[in-house]
Amino acid sequence: MSPIVNRRDLDFHLFEVEALDDLFKHDRYAEHDRATVTAIIDTAQQIAETYYQPCAARLDANEPGFDGERVVLISEVAEALGAYADAGFFSAGFDEELGGFQLPAIVTNAVAGIFSAANLGVANYHFLTIAAAHMLAEFGTDTQKQLYLGPMLEGRCFGTMCLSEPQAGSSLSDITTRAVPTDADHFLIRGSKMWISGGDHEISENIVHMVLAKVPGGPPGVKGISLFIVPKYRVNPDGTTGPKNNVALAGLNHKMGQRGTTNTLLNFGEQGECHGFLVGELHQGLRYMFHMMNEARVGVGLSAAMCGLAGFLCSLQYAQERAQGRPVAQKDPSTPQTAIIRHADIRRLLFSQKASVEGAMSLIFHCCALLDQEKMATTPEARREAKLLLDILTPIAKSWPSEFCLEANKHAIQILGGYGYTREFPVERLYRDNRLNLIHEGTHGIQGLDLLGRKVDMQNGAALDLLIGQMMKDIRRAATRDALQDFSKELTDMVGQLKATTRTLMACDDIERRLANATLYLDAFGHVVIAWMWLRQANVATVALQCEDKSETAFYRGKLQTCRYFFRYELPRVSVWTRLLESLDDTCVGAGPEIFA
Amino acid sequence: MSPIVNRRDLDFHLFEVEALDDLFKHDRYAEHDRATVTAIIDTAQQIAETYYQPCAARLDANEPGFDGERVVLISEVAEALGAYADAGFFSAGFDEELGGFQLPAIVTNAVAGIFSAANLGVANYHFLTIAAAHMLAEFGTDTQKQLYLGPMLEGRCFGTMCLSEPQAGSSLSDITTRAVPTDADHFLIRGSKMWISGGDHEISENIVHMVLAKVPGGPPGVKGISLFIVPKYRVNPDGTTGPKNNVALAGLNHKMGQRGTTNTLLNFGEQGECHGFLVGELHQGLRYMFHMMNEARVGVGLSAAMCGLAGFLCSLQYAQERAQGRPVAQKDPSTPQTAIIRHADIRRLLFSQKASVEGAMSLIFHCCALLDQEKMATTPEARREAKLLLDILTPIAKSWPSEFCLEANKHAIQILGGYGYTREFPVERLYRDNRLNLIHEGTHGIQGLDLLGRKVDMQNGAALDLLIGQMMKDIRRAATRDALQDFSKELTDMVGQLKATTRTLMACDDIERRLANATLYLDAFGHVVIAWMWLRQANVATVALQCEDKSETAFYRGKLQTCRYFFRYELPRVSVWTRLLESLDDTCVGAGPEIFA
Repeated sequence: MSPIVNRRDLDFHLFEVEALDDLFKHDRYAEHDRATVTAIIDTAQQIAETYYQPCAARLDANEPGFDGERVVLISEVAEALGAYADAGFFSAGFDEELGGFQLPAIVTNAVAGIFSAANLGVANYHFLTIAAAHMLAEFGTDTQKQLYLGPMLEGRCFGTMCLSEPQAGSSLSDITTRAVPTDADHFLIRGSKMWISGGDHEISENIVHMVLAKVPGGPPGVKGISLFIVPKYRVNPDGTTGPKNNVALAGLNHKMGQRGTTNTLLNFGEQGECHGFLVGELHQGLRYMFHMMNEARVGVGLSAAMCGLAGFLCSLQYAQERAQGRPVAQKDPSTPQTAIIRHADIRRLLFSQKASVEGAMSLIFHCCALLDQEKMATTPEARREAKLLLDILTPIAKSWPSEFCLEANKHAIQILGGYGYTREFPVERLYRDNRLNLIHEGTHGIQGLDLLGRKVDMQNGAALDLLIGQMMKDIRRAATRDALQDFSKELTDMVGQLKATTRTLMACDDIERRLANATLYLDAFGHVVIAWMWLRQANVATVALQCEDKSETAFYRGKLQTCRYFFRYELPRVSVWTRLLESLDDTCVGAGPEIFA
Repeated sequence: MSPIVNRRDLDFHLFEVEALDDLFKHDRYAEHDRATVTAIIDTAQQIAETYYQPCAARLDANEPGFDGERVVLISEVAEALGAYADAGFFSAGFDEELGGFQLPAIVTNAVAGIFSAANLGVANYHFLTIAAAHMLAEFGTDTQKQLYLGPMLEGRCFGTMCLSEPQAGSSLSDITTRAVPTDADHFLIRGSKMWISGGDHEISENIVHMVLAKVPGGPPGVKGISLFIVPKYRVNPDGTTGPKNNVALAGLNHKMGQRGTTNTLLNFGEQGECHGFLVGELHQGLRYMFHMMNEARVGVGLSAAMCGLAGFLCSLQYAQERAQGRPVAQKDPSTPQTAIIRHADIRRLLFSQKASVEGAMSLIFHCCALLDQEKMATTPEARREAKLLLDILTPIAKSWPSEFCLEANKHAIQILGGYGYTREFPVERLYRDNRLNLIHEGTHGIQGLDLLGRKVDMQNGAALDLLIGQMMKDIRRAATRDALQDFSKELTDMVGQLKATTRTLMACDDIERRLANATLYLDAFGHVVIAWMWLRQANVATVALQCEDKSETAFYRGKLQTCRYFFRYELPRVSVWTRLLESLDDTCVGAGPEIFA
């Protein structure tokens, strides 16, 4: 098996770039220190390597099936999730009063990433459960927490997100699932939900579906959406499991990747009463769900980065071991073949992967650090700033890794050549797994509309100003260092282009035209953000190269060289995108659909 | 089932852009006319839709297996190939004296493309057989033609290409398969061949392997490679099938795509004498094999384009039918949902696919037209020119469709959203099928080295000069048309950048550095070529819009709009690539491999 994590690099992100040690000075995290965090990550890696990674190929080849009565998965899945639960990972990020370890988000996400790299199809079960649990911890009543959150944190009960319907995927305002109030404390749920990951299985004792539905008489569109807890089995007041709640499996979707995660069409209330319990207030469901959704979006970005990482590490190992061909200047066929890592094009494919993967990881961990800052903030202003930054970075964190770490997986296959497209190596599976990340939890196009249509001008552009302010701090730091001066100039230039482009777009009154190329704006914005992430890493590496012992030189020089790769090979693309955006190009708006015929 | 071919567009490429009617004036093709060609394509489409397309998903889900004695495929494969053979398609492109229809290459490739779009896993069997047959027709002896070529043209015997070995993939100079002369007319073959498509199966009566091997005592490296006919079953002098020839199936490779094509590790001569028959002269094997390989490379490009086309047509149909969301300016959720083809980002994904797919098809059919021109040439100069153009375009024809029509397939999935990643629709399979095309028959990196390290400066740059001359003709034509003036200027500029970059690279004495970014040179060159292909199409469309009846207006306007899309969204990338190449960037050369750790 090839490695699934580079612990040296993970430490770099956590302790050097994001200065995790500083967090331990805060009351909330005072129970932790570097040693405990390292031990927790050690445990995660050990469980992932023992239970998750070995069954990944087998699970992919043996997707969940329906035997006429229940959904059947290979037994390794329950074993892996059992080991995960036994280690206490379901509750690790939750407050001590809920029985958790109160770990910072950056640590729980580092842990989550290791499981995703090992076997995303299995990791999705806890990823969704934890996101649902966070939402319940925030908005649930005491009774709801007791009946549903508790078992979730013990890993006895899993969670799902039920938003989409067959006729309503990206367009949530068109959902038709209904919740009718009763005299009791429950509503009656009726409708179909599509693409529900983890929607049915026999792994956990119960499944708690978080369901968006409309209560008759409410406002139209998204303003009339409420959120309900809908368990697979009803839960008695004493917490014991009751009868089935009429959530019927109507179909299993057969996917190209992440095949270990059941993906379902569910019918609610078709064959009898299906009880749902309102979360928070009526018609506020989308707001609560977005608490979960925003976490899920960053989580999707993390999964994408980690699929990229697993592919990168596998292809790196192969490139070091595989002998093929000779240096281009060596024409003598009697000389021995060289390891392919010596070939420039193989190195390009490695640099490209490293730049995307470690750049994406850097962004995800930075988002987690913002989450932690929001929690720890001692002033409303500090909390507001952390939240604004997280808000504007979320569409990037979801989309950039999904797009560019998928490309990284493509490169990993390329390095392995013919072996890359066989199922003998994990890289083709990682590529398939990663392809889903551009779609679920809001497509790439939806993220573009979220960024350009909502985030960049919310609160009069406060988030964008704040973000650029943060970038400029790191750019100024880099400008004081000889090795980074060119990069600091280039990024300053690109940030300027992005600002100018944003102004032009915001000044355009024709909303159709303003948003016509929102996806390219997202990509351009993302490239600037990832360049910033590389400059932050390069700032740290430059200092470290002056102080650290020589055994670390290669590691830090690798960071600088990869930063250079990103600035030379990738960042210039921003100009191509911004030029098109500046021109308010309407190629995709103007013509009628008949011209595709 | 979604459409696999757009016949209007196919006619456009064949009859309007490449002026196929002119070919029928030539003696060689005088037997044909537009009506016969149309009837042949009708037949191909009918067979593809009846036998190939319906089993594509089932074949993908039921890959070839080994039952302990033989390779087992679902029965539809043999039925499909039987229908193909019965229609006479194996021999359609061959001379009448060999029993063929003597069809132009552009027609046989149009036909081949339809089968590839329908079911690439099946189409590969005839694709490889025909390439092997072409090579035998060119270089085989009369006896070899009688014993092997005849049955291949009847479809009773299939062909393979055996180049790679487990330790020698891209590096052919390191093959170790041996051919030892005997007193009889055969050599004894001994060695292993890897990644052999169609290497074993029970579909045809016999399999003829075209095997590269070294005769002991020959020169080292590629100069000591000879080519041998190695049948699965020996063939008696009267043409009847003899005993097994000791070609043993050592393994079936399980691939991510094109799963219907068996892919094998073969051992030659391990359990007894394996007879091989020399093709042409000793030590000239690579030259003969490249006759087949060059055809295969254009063929891979065609397959990639057609996978792209099938995905484009499927996603276009979906975008027209699927209602989701509302125009961005419409906030009222009580209005009906709109077909997603109305959304700008969906159109961008459609334009991008159309630009890549129809641009790639245009290039492939242009290469085929050059092949036909080479055959018909009445002067050595005309023959030389056609050959030079084909030589320099071959690496582009192989690589550009493989890279950018794979991206097109990615977009097709995106348009279908969740449905796109399920196996309910063909787009995820097409994406998997297409991923192989960047690797087999010479990886993307190898094509870059072929173009920059060999083709652009062969005969003192004659091919490049000739190609640019051809481009300038079409650019000048476009410059006379108002609607195309901007494009003609932009392409002139990009051609200038490409020339300047080529000069800089050629002037660099450090070969390692000159070739460091050969793959990016390939991509930049490819984008310029495809822009040229779009300008050629736009030239035709502009004229047609002035003359044709109104029923064709949407079709031709679609061509112009897609040309515009390519020039605005894609062509500017060339500047990013050439700037990097001009700088002779050594990021990927300089550093040691340890920095990836």
